[in-house]
Amino acid sequence: MNAQTIQHQTISLMNTICDIGAATAVLNWDQETYMPHGGSMTRAEQISTLSTLMHQMLTGDNAKQLVEGIKKEHGTNDQPLMRLFVEEHEKAIKLPEDLVKRVSKAQALGQDIWKEARANKDFSAFASILDELLTLKREEAECRGYVENRYDALLDIYEPGATVSHLNPVFDKLRDATSTILKAIEPVKQTVSDKPLLQHFPGDAQMAFSKFIAEKMGFDFSRGRMDLTAHPFCTSFTQHDVRLTTRINEQDLSSCLYGVIHETGHGLYEQGFPSKYARTFAAEGASIGMHESQSLLWETIVTRTEEFWQFAMPHFAKYFPEQAKGLSPRDMFHAVNTIQPSLIRVEADEITYNMHIILRFEIERDLINGSLATKDIPEAWNAKMKEYLGVTPPNDALGCLQDVHWSFGGFGYFPSYTLGKLYAAMEWKKIQEVMPQVKQDIANGEFSGILSWLREHIHAYGRTAKPGEIIKQVTGNPLSEEEFVRYAYAKASSVYGIQLG
Amino acid sequence: MNAQTIQHQTISLMNTICDIGAATAVLNWDQETYMPHGGSMTRAEQISTLSTLMHQMLTGDNAKQLVEGIKKEHGTNDQPLMRLFVEEHEKAIKLPEDLVKRVSKAQALGQDIWKEARANKDFSAFASILDELLTLKREEAECRGYVENRYDALLDIYEPGATVSHLNPVFDKLRDATSTILKAIEPVKQTVSDKPLLQHFPGDAQMAFSKFIAEKMGFDFSRGRMDLTAHPFCTSFTQHDVRLTTRINEQDLSSCLYGVIHETGHGLYEQGFPSKYARTFAAEGASIGMHESQSLLWETIVTRTEEFWQFAMPHFAKYFPEQAKGLSPRDMFHAVNTIQPSLIRVEADEITYNMHIILRFEIERDLINGSLATKDIPEAWNAKMKEYLGVTPPNDALGCLQDVHWSFGGFGYFPSYTLGKLYAAMEWKKIQEVMPQVKQDIANGEFSGILSWLREHIHAYGRTAKPGEIIKQVTGNPLSEEEFVRYAYAKASSVYGIQLG
Repeated sequence: MNAQTIQHQTISLMNTICDIGAATAVLNWDQETYMPHGGSMTRAEQISTLSTLMHQMLTGDNAKQLVEGIKKEHGTNDQPLMRLFVEEHEKAIKLPEDLVKRVSKAQALGQDIWKEARANKDFSAFASILDELLTLKREEAECRGYVENRYDALLDIYEPGATVSHLNPVFDKLRDATSTILKAIEPVKQTVSDKPLLQHFPGDAQMAFSKFIAEKMGFDFSRGRMDLTAHPFCTSFTQHDVRLTTRINEQDLSSCLYGVIHETGHGLYEQGFPSKYARTFAAEGASIGMHESQSLLWETIVTRTEEFWQFAMPHFAKYFPEQAKGLSPRDMFHAVNTIQPSLIRVEADEITYNMHIILRFEIERDLINGSLATKDIPEAWNAKMKEYLGVTPPNDALGCLQDVHWSFGGFGYFPSYTLGKLYAAMEWKKIQEVMPQVKQDIANGEFSGILSWLREHIHAYGRTAKPGEIIKQVTGNPLSEEEFVRYAYAKASSVYGIQLG
Repeated sequence: MNAQTIQHQTISLMNTICDIGAATAVLNWDQETYMPHGGSMTRAEQISTLSTLMHQMLTGDNAKQLVEGIKKEHGTNDQPLMRLFVEEHEKAIKLPEDLVKRVSKAQALGQDIWKEARANKDFSAFASILDELLTLKREEAECRGYVENRYDALLDIYEPGATVSHLNPVFDKLRDATSTILKAIEPVKQTVSDKPLLQHFPGDAQMAFSKFIAEKMGFDFSRGRMDLTAHPFCTSFTQHDVRLTTRINEQDLSSCLYGVIHETGHGLYEQGFPSKYARTFAAEGASIGMHESQSLLWETIVTRTEEFWQFAMPHFAKYFPEQAKGLSPRDMFHAVNTIQPSLIRVEADEITYNMHIILRFEIERDLINGSLATKDIPEAWNAKMKEYLGVTPPNDALGCLQDVHWSFGGFGYFPSYTLGKLYAAMEWKKIQEVMPQVKQDIANGEFSGILSWLREHIHAYGRTAKPGEIIKQVTGNPLSEEEFVRYAYAKASSVYGIQLG
């Protein structure tokens, strides 16, 4: 085969694999949105069949020959796609089929057992399957390979290139900065109230207002839609069909509104991949962390400015005339930026949120390396919660059983959430440099400048560049906590009227 | 391989193919219900990829070896599934891949051109691609093979075993009987009015009332759901997840109500396949005609009895208090059974409907055999409409361009609709024999006896028996028009107060 034939056939195989992946995503979306309860058993079989097919196609003889061909040839004219295909193939063949099956079986079991253990607030019921998952993931890490730390092999699944030796000092400094903020606001914390968000907000109006904001941000509803699910998510079946979901709490506006803004941030990234990458491995986020930076930039930075509420206030008052009475943009700015240590990660504010992640990172790292035993998780968890946030879970359901991730063996995923915040702060600094008027734009409800910048500097890459390369290219600096700390000090100072940093 | 291994591997391959088929059905359902407009191009590619995969799996080396093995072995303990697999494989390999691709390309083109031609009421714009589709389908018929008539090869796709020589006399007699009915009611046609259906009925109440009836019929909404689409349909992703769709015309109740009842009839069939057939080729209707008999038995027979409206009237009055004023069950019985020759097949009553089918059957048969030229379709169509129904289409959009079927080369499909009516009348006669109290049951809103009978005598087979075998087994007779004609005479006599048959 000549270079052109190899390239043509590789792209064709990638198209097939991506089409099956898209079908799998549709099956998952349908399962969460509209599928009747009775369909769950056969749906699991359908999804499993498609996933197996994708794995077979990526690791089969045809793929092997193409990878050999690509490696022999140089100078194919669409090199990033070829490189991605080789990478994905080589990652996939590292995992023995037998291990993949054992992990998949333990995952299914793990999620069932976790649900029950959480409902019964009983970690001990979950400990045995969790231990099995840890053993399997240690085995997987050895198959995947690493240079320094076994946990690096798992971090790399979600954030290519991330390592313990890089994250340890970053997270240490972030933990210290968060402690500094918490101490500083302690004497004045009564001055800021989230009451404006905790009124009765009818569900339909919440959906309409949230959709209005999503459209303002630039989400293209002719290439996407929004539905209700138990847990909000964003999924994409190509950049031409991106689905957001949200949930509604009629006693708390932020769950729906900021949930939608968050998923819209993800959705804008998905809608922003260049058309030429459709149906290839390049039409994806550079990493989970980079994807989170796209949702968090919008959710925690842009739409939690006072300027955003200067723009949004009249619209808010139109959708919620009674609730808006007597409220100023400054009141809303305060309400959406209250800082309050709490037990549950997904309900945490943007500052204390990182403590939840750092705690999980430290526990995972030690579990995978064998320096923490599974049975000792609750004790370690509660001690760290006390140390980092000053709170103690009354039971494990509100402690170490709260998240789904470990039940499917997703060790290495959590750090991405905080990496997203760090990337977002770095992106935001750059945006302010190149668009000094950006806050005035926000006050005018003009978000297209921000979106254009993201399209050009982040979205355009898709997955053809590593997250570390992108952030270096965009900001001139490698990933660090510095910008986020600066941003967090400034935000806390502004909200609580103190002087930090 | 021994018999057991062959059987095990064949079922496993069938499971995989059926799972991909189910995923394709979900993609199609999503496309019709919720997919944003922008998703259509990549959705077509996803569906095409999955369809190609299924074809490859059914015709590939693995399938070939299994079929050879099945043929060598005898006495496998699940013979119907093995037989179905061999049949499907042998049907699939008869069609050269090149022909499949040419047909598929012409189909896509045909649908686009047809839509435009219909919008412009211009048959000549459609004639060239239709001619190409006819040429391809003649070629396909030759590949599929037939004994007597080339059109038989296409009939067999939808109704296994159906032939021109069998249908010709059946349809001739049916046409004569329909003429007899139309002549008989002509002098008294003003005595029956469909006005009760032509009031303003709010959409939400139509959906709620229709869903109530579907539940009464026995549709299990924990294994299915109902949504809105431009054209109503029923699709199934296994018997555990069956989706109905409907549309609403606020000026005509029958479109939604009887549309839902029709699709519910299909849905009950799909939900009724034995669990052991899940994810195999047996979990399907015996034929399109048998499937139609399940929808039509409910839609045109059971729920158009006066007894049905005796049951339904108080519920109707609850959902539509204003509209129900002064109406009796007898008024509703009349309204839903008016007979009126008209131009459009999908709007036709149950009696004149068959004329639309017979006309199409005759034209298709002659086109495929070359005794009618494509360019002469409008003339033939209009002449037959005049002769059979006494009406003349003012243009081709209301004439030979009205249906989508020819635009995808679906020659041979139309007869199934009328075969469904003939099967349904034969089933209804048997039901009345074994359940003499069935009309009283209907008046009491008790439909479980009918459903149980269908489950046992029709649904239980899935696709493991041919439709001809099933109807012979159930009624003791082969397919004929006799019962339908008897039924139609009795219905017309009762509705119009005349004496027929």
